[in-house]
Amino acid sequence: MPERYNPERYNKVLAFSGGVGGAKLALGLSHLLTPEQLTIVVNTADDFEHLGLSISPDIDTLIYTLAGLNDQQQGWGLANESWQVMAALEQRGSETWFRLGDRDIATHLERSQRLASGQTLAEVTAALADQLGVKHPILPMSDDPVRTRLLTAEGELAFQQYFVREQCQPVIDRFYFSGLDQARPQADFLRLLQSEPLDAIIICPSNPFLSVEPIISLQGVRQAMRDNPAPVVAISPIVAGLAIKGPAAKMMQELSMPATALAVAEYYGDLLDGFVIDESDRALLEPIKALGIDVAVCPTVMKNLQDRIDLAASVLSFSQTISRNS
Amino acid sequence: MPERYNPERYNKVLAFSGGVGGAKLALGLSHLLTPEQLTIVVNTADDFEHLGLSISPDIDTLIYTLAGLNDQQQGWGLANESWQVMAALEQRGSETWFRLGDRDIATHLERSQRLASGQTLAEVTAALADQLGVKHPILPMSDDPVRTRLLTAEGELAFQQYFVREQCQPVIDRFYFSGLDQARPQADFLRLLQSEPLDAIIICPSNPFLSVEPIISLQGVRQAMRDNPAPVVAISPIVAGLAIKGPAAKMMQELSMPATALAVAEYYGDLLDGFVIDESDRALLEPIKALGIDVAVCPTVMKNLQDRIDLAASVLSFSQTISRNS
Repeated sequence: MPERYNPERYNKVLAFSGGVGGAKLALGLSHLLTPEQLTIVVNTADDFEHLGLSISPDIDTLIYTLAGLNDQQQGWGLANESWQVMAALEQRGSETWFRLGDRDIATHLERSQRLASGQTLAEVTAALADQLGVKHPILPMSDDPVRTRLLTAEGELAFQQYFVREQCQPVIDRFYFSGLDQARPQADFLRLLQSEPLDAIIICPSNPFLSVEPIISLQGVRQAMRDNPAPVVAISPIVAGLAIKGPAAKMMQELSMPATALAVAEYYGDLLDGFVIDESDRALLEPIKALGIDVAVCPTVMKNLQDRIDLAASVLSFSQTISRNS
Repeated sequence: MPERYNPERYNKVLAFSGGVGGAKLALGLSHLLTPEQLTIVVNTADDFEHLGLSISPDIDTLIYTLAGLNDQQQGWGLANESWQVMAALEQRGSETWFRLGDRDIATHLERSQRLASGQTLAEVTAALADQLGVKHPILPMSDDPVRTRLLTAEGELAFQQYFVREQCQPVIDRFYFSGLDQARPQADFLRLLQSEPLDAIIICPSNPFLSVEPIISLQGVRQAMRDNPAPVVAISPIVAGLAIKGPAAKMMQELSMPATALAVAEYYGDLLDGFVIDESDRALLEPIKALGIDVAVCPTVMKNLQDRIDLAASVLSFSQTISRNS
């Protein structure tokens, strides 16, 4: 474990996050860094339009988590949620495979009407986060629509069809991000990456393929990450061959990779300066180092708030020890 | 009071309805006539788009009333409604002057997405009514958008802005129906009116200016009403100089008419074959007859279900006694 980091050394840290796992670490980081020191960039490739509403699951998971409003038992949505609209939608013959709580629906109604009135997704996100008391800036990776499409044994599926309706059961052949070629990185995100000497770029423990890949594949992002002096540090979402949550491990097998932290490190490749693996994967330390990536070993499974803060502290300490490869 | 009507004599009755008052009589009629015998045509000029939802207040009032789901105390919306979404919208900085219950929101979500998918308002209305167990056909007056606009001392207002947000306080100078010139009467409505020998056309006790005028002003409707052999019978929404509900009486004063059942009869003019007034307005019987309109006098204030059925029976009996003027 590296020695304690110095929080005053930070000017600006950028964290990339997907859904639940990423939001957990982002919450830990938000306890250690001020809103001026930390900006979180969120995947939007699993956004979708449903029941006429514009839904941004990863943005909402992050807002709800940072606001302390998330349902920790269920792992998604709001705590103490009610389900009156859903029950009534069922009575009215509507699709109900995507369960939306009443207060969550209010989020989507507000987002949808703001988008319809011409606001950007970044503006809408900032307004919702502000209303719910979140202080740390949250940026969607892009204001333009990018949508994950999965080619599976049961046909092509939108991400939420695969993830929620089909419960990740169909075997994945390949996936792509519709709209990615035309999408521009969100302006503040790209400006930070291209113009600010960041102190660290942290890739949270989210699905590398479905949550992180869309962010780093946006035009100019990968190059800007390389050009920025900040070390790029990822936390493995795979621990002892299992994904803490979600289909990452199952996907790796279906995509003919071993479901290991090593394979995740290889997937990110020379984009990484540092990689954080769980204590249970200590045996992978040397093989990952052999890729030319610095490695930290620490507990990465976040069961409570202290775990989240401890992992965030470890990641920040680690990032301060890394000299850039390039 | 005319003698008891013969329900078997009816082939088809058409009723025009606005909101609460109209829906009360429509409910009474639905207890006396089968779904084959009764079709209800509803005003859509107070429809509006709010929070990104397509809302049809008069259609919903009618569906909820016929389904037995309406809130009778409040006079609008669903009974035993919950308000979780509204509370959360308020927390998210949304407009909350138009109070929408959770299950009512489900209706609007379902309507909005069906409309967005290309269904007509008539198709959406039929689907929602069917899902909620309503057997009698409900037709929107038009599938095309018509929107009431009120020119008031405080500027031009959309109907719901005037009715709900401003609580009918602004003094009305005049009003018009945006889109009316381009709107076609709903196809089944026009076909019934033009091609079926109807037994009666009943104008329910709704606001003559804001609820009934849009229906009868649709292109071809007034002429088809005249050409159809059915007697046209209206029930006065003004009783003893007061509107049972809504701004009708206040509007009449602002539009420089006396707020009386006689003025309502004069407003409808030669479109009417029969007019039903309340017992408290018996003194107006002869003045209205002098307009060449048959008049029935009976209790018209509907406080409970039996009142609604009794008034419906009186109106049907009365309509069977009327010979057409033309």
